[in-house]
Amino acid sequence: MLDAWCTRIGEVEPGPVTEAMAYSLRAPGKRIRPAFVVAAFEALDGEGDVGELATAVEIVHTYSLVHDDLPCMDDDRTRRGRPTVHVAFGEAVAVLAGDALLAAAFAALLDGAGPGDAGRRVAAARDLAGAAGSLALVGGQVDDLRFSGGDAEAIESVHARKSAALIAASVTTGARLGGAGAGPLARLARFGRALGVAFQIADDLLDAGDDEACSLVRVLGPEGARARADALLASALAEIEELGLRAEPLRVLARYAVRRDE
Amino acid sequence: MLDAWCTRIGEVEPGPVTEAMAYSLRAPGKRIRPAFVVAAFEALDGEGDVGELATAVEIVHTYSLVHDDLPCMDDDRTRRGRPTVHVAFGEAVAVLAGDALLAAAFAALLDGAGPGDAGRRVAAARDLAGAAGSLALVGGQVDDLRFSGGDAEAIESVHARKSAALIAASVTTGARLGGAGAGPLARLARFGRALGVAFQIADDLLDAGDDEACSLVRVLGPEGARARADALLASALAEIEELGLRAEPLRVLARYAVRRDE
Repeated sequence: MLDAWCTRIGEVEPGPVTEAMAYSLRAPGKRIRPAFVVAAFEALDGEGDVGELATAVEIVHTYSLVHDDLPCMDDDRTRRGRPTVHVAFGEAVAVLAGDALLAAAFAALLDGAGPGDAGRRVAAARDLAGAAGSLALVGGQVDDLRFSGGDAEAIESVHARKSAALIAASVTTGARLGGAGAGPLARLARFGRALGVAFQIADDLLDAGDDEACSLVRVLGPEGARARADALLASALAEIEELGLRAEPLRVLARYAVRRDE
Repeated sequence: MLDAWCTRIGEVEPGPVTEAMAYSLRAPGKRIRPAFVVAAFEALDGEGDVGELATAVEIVHTYSLVHDDLPCMDDDRTRRGRPTVHVAFGEAVAVLAGDALLAAAFAALLDGAGPGDAGRRVAAARDLAGAAGSLALVGGQVDDLRFSGGDAEAIESVHARKSAALIAASVTTGARLGGAGAGPLARLARFGRALGVAFQIADDLLDAGDDEACSLVRVLGPEGARARADALLASALAEIEELGLRAEPLRVLARYAVRRDE
């Protein structure tokens, strides 16, 4: 899905920005966020193929990685063994490619083929804007850049904004496209937030994140961090217990996200 | 409208990013893009107050200025006599504030109080995503950064993407919120594109843009550039002639945008 999209934008507008967009989108990744959109949609018994719309959350995630890697931010020169976008294409193109990705994510969600009438699309796009904006993804990145130590609670608060907001928005995007009522929507949002924090802890465990200032592994140790991730996973799963069998893909995905090392 | 919005985001999320967002949004400016939304909405006899939704296009414009000023782009240290955002707040905050502004623009258009059912909001937000994305604003900025000379046609092609696309999207956003049919919508889009190029030429005339590589003033001289802007204004006005009296605010605004020096 993303691959076809990359080919299309490159054909419509050949040039460094679309090359950089495709380069970043085609990087190997777990694609776990669009999977959450699809699984949440299915948990609501949504009808139709939500795959194309689900790419929106991966595009938002990718924009945030491209900008976070910039020299003025985390100054990372490689990501998953490949040069980061600003190393491969220059800093100006990296800023612009990130910008274009963020705009493209909204186009994908509002304009893409698939289920969800205009009202559901608007509701889903609002969630995405909220997760991508100053209160969540961006606010969390500022916290992370300025982080100079703190206890487990302070670290989880950064995780909640920087990582969990977009995971939660992926879940609610799927739920909104599937026409979730207020009750299931609120439960799925809480599921997404708890799971998102657990997911970040799992990431830090895999990356041996004990040299990162903002990592629970540093504060609680690997075993303490693992226990906290498991507790968050359990509370997330409890939120969606009453969704029954149709939510089974969502549960499998949640366990995989938090226990990838098994 | 924008001022109240800045106050609100600062209260919800105090910190450097929302401060930088408010700093850039509160800079003195013509606010001509939201005025085009309102005038186009009125030209369609749209009912209701579209003012809050119209802020979305000013927020997109502001995000593009913040990122264009960055050291890796145009490297501007002042804008309208004030330090640019990265000079005042640092480069990382400037990147993040621009990102948050772009996300906030979609939230403003999709979530704001005012007329336009979900279908109209989706259509307007698509136009905005198109104008902010790789094909227009961002593509035009790449062209501009790489511009190494060319004839009037090449320069107008950059203007069409970098400047005119968002002016055109402002016009079509107002038209879509007002429920324009396909015919008037196409005419208003052509009006917006011609006017946007004329607006950029007028800007270059005011800034004495003859030292800019990508300026019609350099290639045609001030008188030739003025004649071209006037011809574009006339062709823009011809597009909306049949909209009658209700389009008069749109015409006044168009003339003001292109002949600000009078």
